[in-house]
Amino acid sequence: MAIALGEANRAAQAGEVPVGAVIVESSTGRVLAQAHNRVERDNDPTAHAEVLVIRAACEMQGSPRLGDCDLYVTLEPCPLCATAISFARLRRVYYGAYDPKGGGVDHGPRIYEQATCHHKPEVYGGLSEEACATLLKEFFQSRRNASD
Amino acid sequence: MAIALGEANRAAQAGEVPVGAVIVESSTGRVLAQAHNRVERDNDPTAHAEVLVIRAACEMQGSPRLGDCDLYVTLEPCPLCATAISFARLRRVYYGAYDPKGGGVDHGPRIYEQATCHHKPEVYGGLSEEACATLLKEFFQSRRNASD
Repeated sequence: MAIALGEANRAAQAGEVPVGAVIVESSTGRVLAQAHNRVERDNDPTAHAEVLVIRAACEMQGSPRLGDCDLYVTLEPCPLCATAISFARLRRVYYGAYDPKGGGVDHGPRIYEQATCHHKPEVYGGLSEEACATLLKEFFQSRRNASD
Repeated sequence: MAIALGEANRAAQAGEVPVGAVIVESSTGRVLAQAHNRVERDNDPTAHAEVLVIRAACEMQGSPRLGDCDLYVTLEPCPLCATAISFARLRRVYYGAYDPKGGGVDHGPRIYEQATCHHKPEVYGGLSEEACATLLKEFFQSRRNASD
């Protein structure tokens, strides 16, 4: 999660919503990919940290599935990312801050509770929650101050 | 939808699940992007037709948002694609076959009915439904036959 937090900090510095993610190979502990939000830089509404690490790790592994991997992300995944995680067959998701407004795992559509969800990873929320949430709060606060 | 069906046919020929999508600029009727599923070829579980056309159209427009655009797709979008469509602020979604097993618009998590969904496009399902559904049925039938 420290690596994911480092990525989230880089996102904030780049003016992107500060969310960072890492994919780790479960059996070896090896970091396969790390990324932060790049929606604005890439002009890509799907360029969330989770999607970027999934795409990078799949490219590395030469497969669209990552069965032996876990994902760490600083914010509860949105419905898009929660579904991408399911499609990628990731084993576990560890996330930081809860997201009642935009989350799709423990809020909103609760993707993994749907009968039509064919792969449900194990989910652990609230890891390093305060550090992850503080980064987001400070980012949005500074944006509001800038636009006042 | 004819262009989207053409893309879906190309997907089938390439051994990909036959789904095709097109993004059209509402005010001019101009086709901005067209694509088909490339999950296997790209080793990318997020490479659904809708995500690929959204990414291509956003790159063309130099913006992560496509407010003046409509999307045509041969299959009901899954939760990942439904959310990507919302994030891209697309005006309308026209889709072909209904997808009770994997759809995220009129089935499963019904993404646009969630209180946490901040942009809900207009949705029109069932366009050229038979042609779109037949293509999918024939694809999965031929796969089953091949594995018998």
